[in-house]
Amino acid sequence: MRVLVSGGAGYIGSHTVIQLVSAGHDVVIVDDFSNAKPTVVGRLEALSGRSIPVHAFDLADVDKTEHFFAHEDVDAVIHFAGYKAVGESVAKPLDYYQNNLGTTFSLLRAMERHDVHTLVFSSSATVYGADPELPMTEDLPTSATNPYGWTKVMIEQVLRDVAASSDAWRIAALRYFNPVGAHPSGQIGEDPSGIPNNLMPFVAQVAVGRREKLSVFGDDYDTPDGTGVRDYIHVDDLAAGHVAALDRISTGDTGMSTWNLGTGQGVSVLEVVHAFEKASGKPIPYEIAPRRPGDIAASYADPTRANADLNWHATKTIDDMCVDTWRWQSENPTGYPDA
Amino acid sequence: MRVLVSGGAGYIGSHTVIQLVSAGHDVVIVDDFSNAKPTVVGRLEALSGRSIPVHAFDLADVDKTEHFFAHEDVDAVIHFAGYKAVGESVAKPLDYYQNNLGTTFSLLRAMERHDVHTLVFSSSATVYGADPELPMTEDLPTSATNPYGWTKVMIEQVLRDVAASSDAWRIAALRYFNPVGAHPSGQIGEDPSGIPNNLMPFVAQVAVGRREKLSVFGDDYDTPDGTGVRDYIHVDDLAAGHVAALDRISTGDTGMSTWNLGTGQGVSVLEVVHAFEKASGKPIPYEIAPRRPGDIAASYADPTRANADLNWHATKTIDDMCVDTWRWQSENPTGYPDA
Repeated sequence: MRVLVSGGAGYIGSHTVIQLVSAGHDVVIVDDFSNAKPTVVGRLEALSGRSIPVHAFDLADVDKTEHFFAHEDVDAVIHFAGYKAVGESVAKPLDYYQNNLGTTFSLLRAMERHDVHTLVFSSSATVYGADPELPMTEDLPTSATNPYGWTKVMIEQVLRDVAASSDAWRIAALRYFNPVGAHPSGQIGEDPSGIPNNLMPFVAQVAVGRREKLSVFGDDYDTPDGTGVRDYIHVDDLAAGHVAALDRISTGDTGMSTWNLGTGQGVSVLEVVHAFEKASGKPIPYEIAPRRPGDIAASYADPTRANADLNWHATKTIDDMCVDTWRWQSENPTGYPDA
Repeated sequence: MRVLVSGGAGYIGSHTVIQLVSAGHDVVIVDDFSNAKPTVVGRLEALSGRSIPVHAFDLADVDKTEHFFAHEDVDAVIHFAGYKAVGESVAKPLDYYQNNLGTTFSLLRAMERHDVHTLVFSSSATVYGADPELPMTEDLPTSATNPYGWTKVMIEQVLRDVAASSDAWRIAALRYFNPVGAHPSGQIGEDPSGIPNNLMPFVAQVAVGRREKLSVFGDDYDTPDGTGVRDYIHVDDLAAGHVAALDRISTGDTGMSTWNLGTGQGVSVLEVVHAFEKASGKPIPYEIAPRRPGDIAASYADPTRANADLNWHATKTIDDMCVDTWRWQSENPTGYPDA
């Protein structure tokens, strides 16, 4: 298939591009580079041994999106593009709603018009809301604790209704747990702008000397060591889940499916810190700070449905994730070069 | 205040325009006339004794909306514009999401840019979802049973987050129960295109001879006479609720408030039929038909919060509603003239 990867220059998008090519698909990237650097594309081409066409525009632009679909052959779409910073979404909710939903509306409209009906959407375990049952199964009710999370909840509802409106659609929403790690080559990885919002890139920046120490937000949660527990998943396992989901929906039943992509294992903040110290050989100084509003004690997937339906399993351990993150971070201490 | 009324040529919008003028406000209407006839404007001007400026464009058009706000003084907005047909929303969900949310995003963005932060939004009791507790209070969780309803749920969430992001905003979401009736003059009223989706206009069209008979969808609900029970509210009471909410938010606390606008009284389908026969002196032939998917047995408001906060009460009875509907329908048997 020829697959449009929106946000294909971003963290998860770029790793998925590599695996799509490995699986024999053709890829075309659309990315507005608002939160990704163009230099990632050369690395993707080097790693995949293929020329990868890139179109730099904002999918919220209805005319440009229409023009793209009128001139490019596309069989399926994997839609990663979207704003993703929780704190920023609280400060600028309208930016998040307008961008994340507007982009999706424009994309769906163009897909419909050009008879492209196969879509894999980047959702998140954040849709399980403030106080989910554990482990999280796909049938739990959805809600959110911040505008970023609500954009994921809302887009899933839109997709559910679109899928129900016509037998043509084949849609998957993939609910990611906590993606970390990097490509084993050390050539592509997570490159957050500014202060990282997430634990692993922050720890990696401490290890490489860009940050003095880690703040651990809360050590009095009801978890084995008191720190927050998350289901970390290697970005390459996640990317493989996208390829598996695309294969499944393009050959299976029409309609919409939802799959958790997680390991099913909870790992605490302090366990991540210790695994990273082992992987990097560097000490990770940390201090205990107050809980952050909106954070939950523990989050981990029940990945049974994805395991069964997609014949997919997360295979990499937290040690693998730290080793690969450290290789990326130490070889690219300031992320991707500018040009 | 100078109040922008979006969708001001529509059913509820037009009645609210009259009452805003009566209360001493200036009004400017924005309506794209996709579901309203321009001839309503002449009647509004005759009834109010005032010239009412009208701008005919779609608020989803970001450039036109920006141009409007750049050239017009506006102190507050009452936002009625939106698609509202439940069945159509199931068939064309993307139209509904893109229009209702896109219009709201564009409006909020322009308001923010031009320092207009007072907004009354047209929500609906549909946000109480499939199986609400009765009577419905504003604190119940929200959900929906169709895309139209989800657009209301989602826009409320967007407004809640926007209001939380800055102390400048003063926002009210008004959750309407079942608006019926018409202006006592008989000059303005509900003018649905095609087959009416709602009971009262259908009954009125039967009485006036445009339809042969009414279908009553279900007579085996767990209600006193087996037919569905709703909280019908006269559109003039509803319009008065908008004026009261606008006064309250423009002088009270900042943030977002939610108020039910209903009578608190449940009335069955057969009670409406009999009240309309009495008001019109016409028989309303009906047949019992199967329940419609998504319909609930009973819906009625707890209007306590609006009664207390807004010093507002619904005053008109179901007999008043039928008398006024009949006057409008019999004097305008085919609705507003075309031009």
